[in-house]
Amino acid sequence: MRVLAITGGVGGAKLAVGLAKVLQSNEVVFLVNTGDDFRHLGLHISPDLDTLTYSLANISCPAKGWGRRDESWTFVKTLQDLGGPSWFQLGDQDLALHAYRTQLLTEGRSLTEATQVIAEALDVKHSILPASDDPVATTVESDIGELSFQHYFVKHQCRPKVQGIRYVGADRARLNLRLDLATISLVVICPSNPYLSVDPILAIPDLRKFLRKPNVAVLAVSPIVRGRALKGPTTKIMTELGYNVDNETIALHYADFLTGFIVDGADATDCDPIQELGIKCIARNTVMHTTEARVQLARDTLDFGATLSK
Amino acid sequence: MRVLAITGGVGGAKLAVGLAKVLQSNEVVFLVNTGDDFRHLGLHISPDLDTLTYSLANISCPAKGWGRRDESWTFVKTLQDLGGPSWFQLGDQDLALHAYRTQLLTEGRSLTEATQVIAEALDVKHSILPASDDPVATTVESDIGELSFQHYFVKHQCRPKVQGIRYVGADRARLNLRLDLATISLVVICPSNPYLSVDPILAIPDLRKFLRKPNVAVLAVSPIVRGRALKGPTTKIMTELGYNVDNETIALHYADFLTGFIVDGADATDCDPIQELGIKCIARNTVMHTTEARVQLARDTLDFGATLSK
Repeated sequence: MRVLAITGGVGGAKLAVGLAKVLQSNEVVFLVNTGDDFRHLGLHISPDLDTLTYSLANISCPAKGWGRRDESWTFVKTLQDLGGPSWFQLGDQDLALHAYRTQLLTEGRSLTEATQVIAEALDVKHSILPASDDPVATTVESDIGELSFQHYFVKHQCRPKVQGIRYVGADRARLNLRLDLATISLVVICPSNPYLSVDPILAIPDLRKFLRKPNVAVLAVSPIVRGRALKGPTTKIMTELGYNVDNETIALHYADFLTGFIVDGADATDCDPIQELGIKCIARNTVMHTTEARVQLARDTLDFGATLSK
Repeated sequence: MRVLAITGGVGGAKLAVGLAKVLQSNEVVFLVNTGDDFRHLGLHISPDLDTLTYSLANISCPAKGWGRRDESWTFVKTLQDLGGPSWFQLGDQDLALHAYRTQLLTEGRSLTEATQVIAEALDVKHSILPASDDPVATTVESDIGELSFQHYFVKHQCRPKVQGIRYVGADRARLNLRLDLATISLVVICPSNPYLSVDPILAIPDLRKFLRKPNVAVLAVSPIVRGRALKGPTTKIMTELGYNVDNETIALHYADFLTGFIVDGADATDCDPIQELGIKCIARNTVMHTTEARVQLARDTLDFGATLSK
């Protein structure tokens, strides 16, 4: 069984770490959101690719979930002293990765190639693929106007009220050319924010077409526990977009291709209405504070996936 | 008397510091070489502007003459670990300046404006002007092919044999538009490398035309002491270009507009042949290891300048 794991940053990366511990490097491919990518201070920054890379390299900051462990902040402090734009926190080590990626892109390498070069340098064995090498930009329509993702997410700290979300360029973006869909038998949608982190990937037409194929099992792990997201603005965004913040809403969101759904053990009763949608549903522990919990959820996910077929 | 000081990086900045201590901010303008500017890792780097800015802000590294005092190097070490291009040493604090300048340029500000914003943030009162806001690129023709300045100077550490030097774009570059030549009564060419640091400025047609005007006194301080440059590749380059490494060669290099020339006290006997060229020449201490020496040479330069007229 070859697994395609679709993931955003922090939340999804936890399950990705579990999957990478359970599966060999030829058994899983991570397809990562690039809708948050942006240019800042001349540098090409890919937050979700970096979070996954740092997580798989086991050098990520456990407290924050993004960035590097034992980071120093001389650069951004100096930038602030100069009066420069210091709203995006860039650690001194993290910055080196952005600079190197920017250099590789300037030399004509693709984002896929740059990601691979960096992953190899950090001794990551598993394949990390940007969803596309074509630009996809997540854009938030809000009560203070249209905002690029990082302006919404970091600069304005998710405070503006979300009225809509667009994935600019996604309709023309080619799915990552290195992804050999013919080898994939299970797709796992990691517990990332559906609207901000997963949808920019799903908006790529070739991927959505693939997910609807009858022989491909698609399983999602809910990012919602007890009616709330563990982290990030999922709860707020869902409310502002007029959705109920519950597992059924998430399952419905993916319904046109979803085969299986995993809710947290605390939400086992949510499975019944989801089963009625024709989506198999199980309840497992989805709160992953430890490596053991990540590995266990990865095993549960793969065991469940093995039972699924369309 | 309003002074225009033409300068490159390390050597020239020493006299510039002296001039800034002797003259008020409305009495001197520093016109700085941009031929070494380059884009690296997505950032716009202006080495000579930065050396002068750090020097006038009194935060430069005294040992190296470039970069900032008490610098840390986490970024460049991490970049090296990643396998990235770490040949150009970028300190964590220094990097913040490059990033901020890049951001300002991206927003449509000119290099002059960016330089001013940064100088103000560092509490520098004197005017630091890039020679031009148009690109001028110093290019070295060498035995291993044509090299951009930083590739010659840093990456190859001045090892290739110099066969010629070009200032690409200088013939079309407009002299800095904020420079009001009508107010200038004395021009001081600081002791920077004539071929690498001063000529890219002098190659701007409007400046050269101004220097040849009869009412403008132009004074140069020699970068040569006892037949050698104190620092950098001046000696090597002059030899490779077929010049004698002596004060007379430097004076001749500037002869078509030079009114006065200052050689080091150790080279007083060099004054005679230079006087015969019709250039007034005096000998003073030009070795500036201390602030006192910089101030003294600035005073000597201004005293001498006051006696000059074309």
